[in-house]
Amino acid sequence: MKLAIIGYGNIGRGVECAIRQNPDMELYGVFTRRDPNTLQTLTGAPVYAAASLAQHADKLDAVILCAGSATDLPEQTPQTAALCNVVDSFDTHARIPEHFDRVDAAAKASGHTALISGGWDPGLFSLARLYASAALPDGQDYTFWGRGVSQGHSDAIRRIPGVLDARQYTVPVPETLEAVRSGANPALSTRQKHTRECYVVAADGADRDAIRQAIVTMPNYFADYDTSVTFITAEEMQKNHRELPHGGQVIRSGSTGLHAEHQHTVEFSLKLDSNPEFTAGVLVALARAVVRMNRRGDTGCKTIFDVAPADLSALSGAELRKKLL
Amino acid sequence: MKLAIIGYGNIGRGVECAIRQNPDMELYGVFTRRDPNTLQTLTGAPVYAAASLAQHADKLDAVILCAGSATDLPEQTPQTAALCNVVDSFDTHARIPEHFDRVDAAAKASGHTALISGGWDPGLFSLARLYASAALPDGQDYTFWGRGVSQGHSDAIRRIPGVLDARQYTVPVPETLEAVRSGANPALSTRQKHTRECYVVAADGADRDAIRQAIVTMPNYFADYDTSVTFITAEEMQKNHRELPHGGQVIRSGSTGLHAEHQHTVEFSLKLDSNPEFTAGVLVALARAVVRMNRRGDTGCKTIFDVAPADLSALSGAELRKKLL
Repeated sequence: MKLAIIGYGNIGRGVECAIRQNPDMELYGVFTRRDPNTLQTLTGAPVYAAASLAQHADKLDAVILCAGSATDLPEQTPQTAALCNVVDSFDTHARIPEHFDRVDAAAKASGHTALISGGWDPGLFSLARLYASAALPDGQDYTFWGRGVSQGHSDAIRRIPGVLDARQYTVPVPETLEAVRSGANPALSTRQKHTRECYVVAADGADRDAIRQAIVTMPNYFADYDTSVTFITAEEMQKNHRELPHGGQVIRSGSTGLHAEHQHTVEFSLKLDSNPEFTAGVLVALARAVVRMNRRGDTGCKTIFDVAPADLSALSGAELRKKLL
Repeated sequence: MKLAIIGYGNIGRGVECAIRQNPDMELYGVFTRRDPNTLQTLTGAPVYAAASLAQHADKLDAVILCAGSATDLPEQTPQTAALCNVVDSFDTHARIPEHFDRVDAAAKASGHTALISGGWDPGLFSLARLYASAALPDGQDYTFWGRGVSQGHSDAIRRIPGVLDARQYTVPVPETLEAVRSGANPALSTRQKHTRECYVVAADGADRDAIRQAIVTMPNYFADYDTSVTFITAEEMQKNHRELPHGGQVIRSGSTGLHAEHQHTVEFSLKLDSNPEFTAGVLVALARAVVRMNRRGDTGCKTIFDVAPADLSALSGAELRKKLL
C-alpha cells in the first residue's frame, strides 16, 4: 500500500522510519506547507507541496497526518478525508466528539475511511481501558503518564521571560502506583498521581527565583503538582535532555464473584525511548487497517475502538491464529 | 440479551456471576449433562438437560460453553454453532486451526456466529501480542504465566500413586522477567522462564522420595523446569491452597528509528485472584460482541482478533469516545 505523510516534524519523521519496517507498505512522499525544495527527508523520500495533494490523491491508499491537534488537525483531517483515506493522532480528549462528527461527515460524503486519535493515548491506552472495563465491569481505571517529556509543558515554560530552553518530565508517584497495583482502589488527587520535573536554561542575568515562581504557580500546568525546577546549562540540555522518552500505565482493578470476593488487576504499560517514533508505529498499523476497511466498503470516521485487531497486522487471519492466538 | 451456560464447573459458575455484573444481559439457564434435578446453581438460575438445547435455541441470543478443551469442545462447539451463536474458551493452542475450520463450517451453514478461544490466554494475551507486534514489527515477544495454579499440572501430580491431592503453581523467574523488561531481548530456555512449585498431600505411609522423583522427572510437565515439592497436610491444602489465582505478563520489546536506535517495551499483565472468574468476565464480553456481529450478518467462526473492541462494551460508540478514548 502507498502511504503519504503530511507534516514533517518528529512524528512525520517517525512515520517515514516506521513505513520501512513494514514490507507491505511504501512511502509515496511527504507533503509539506514549507517550500518543498527546502526540505530534505531522512530516507530521500520525495517532497511535495501540501497544496498539491488533490493531484496525487488517486495514487495514495492512505495519508498519515502528522500535524498538531490545537489548530491544524481540526481543519486538515476533514479536508484530507474529502480526498483520501486518512489517519490522524488528534489528542485533545475533550474535543474528540466534535472532531469525530466533522471528519465523519467529510469521509462519508467522499466514500473514504478516516481514523482519528491514533497513537498511544488516545490509542493503545484507550484500548487498555476498554478491554479491561469490558472484562471487569465493577472496577476502577487509573492512567499514569511518564516518566516522560511533555512537550506542552516544556513549551509553557519556554514562554516565561528569561527562559531560553526547557524540558519538563512528567513522573508518576511510585507509592501511588504501588497502591493502585495492590488493588486498594484509592481516591487520588492530581498531586498524588504525578510530580513534574523541570530543567531550565535561563538567560544570563535572568531572575531565577522569579522563573521558578512563575513555573510552580502556573495554573493548569503546574500549580496542582509538586514541581521541581533545576537550572542547567545549554550544553547539559543538549547532552542529557535531547531525546523524547515517554510511557505510562493504564491499570484497572476490579472484583468478581457472587459477593465481589475476588480482586483482579489488569495493567498495560509502555516504556518508550522515543514517543514520536512509537506513536508513528501505531499510526502506520492503523493506516493498514484503514486501507483494508475502505476496500471492504466500511467508510466514515473510525477510532481504534472500531478496528478489528486482525486488520492492524500484516499477517493473514490464519497466520495470526497459528502464531499469536 | 439472553445467554445460556453449558457446563457447570468453575468457569460456568464464573459466567453465572459475571452475567449479573452486566445489566444488558440475562442468564436464561444452565444446561448440563448431569441430571438437572441434582444441580443447584449459585443464583438459582434454572437448569436444563444439555440434550434439550435445540428446544430452547430460538430463545437464546448466545451460548457460552464452559467445558474442557481436550475432548468436550472439539465436538460441542460445532454442534452448538449449528443451533445458536456460541462462545468457547478452547485453549489447546496447537489445535486452534483445525477447531476453527470445523466451527466455521457449522456456523456458516446455520447462519450463526461462533467465537473460539476466548479468555485471557488465548484471549487478552493474544491481543497484547498482536497489538504490540503491529506497533513494533521489529521486536520480540515473551509470555510469562503466574504466579498461579496450573490445573493440568496439578492433575498430573494427582495421578501419581500415593498422592491424595496436589496443587501446582507456575512462577516466572524474577531475574528473567527483569531482563526482558529491560529490553535486553534475551534468548531463554524453558528452565530460565518459569519454576514450578508443587504442594502435595501424600497418603499415610506413601514413599515421599518416590513421589518427589516421579514429579520432578515427569516429561513435558516438570522435567524441563526447576521444580520444588512440598508435602503438606490435607488441612493445609484446604486452608492455603483452595483458591485458583493466576496471571502473567506479555512483554514485547522492539526498536524503531532510522538505525534501530530507540528501544521500546510494551507490557500487558494480569494479577487474578480467580482465574475462572476473570476468564468468565472475558467470555461474557465476547458473547455481547458475538450477538452484535450476528445481528449485523457477520456469521461464521471468529476469534478475539476479529472483534472490533467497541463491540465488547455495553457503552455506545459515542459514550466510548467521550469516556474511554
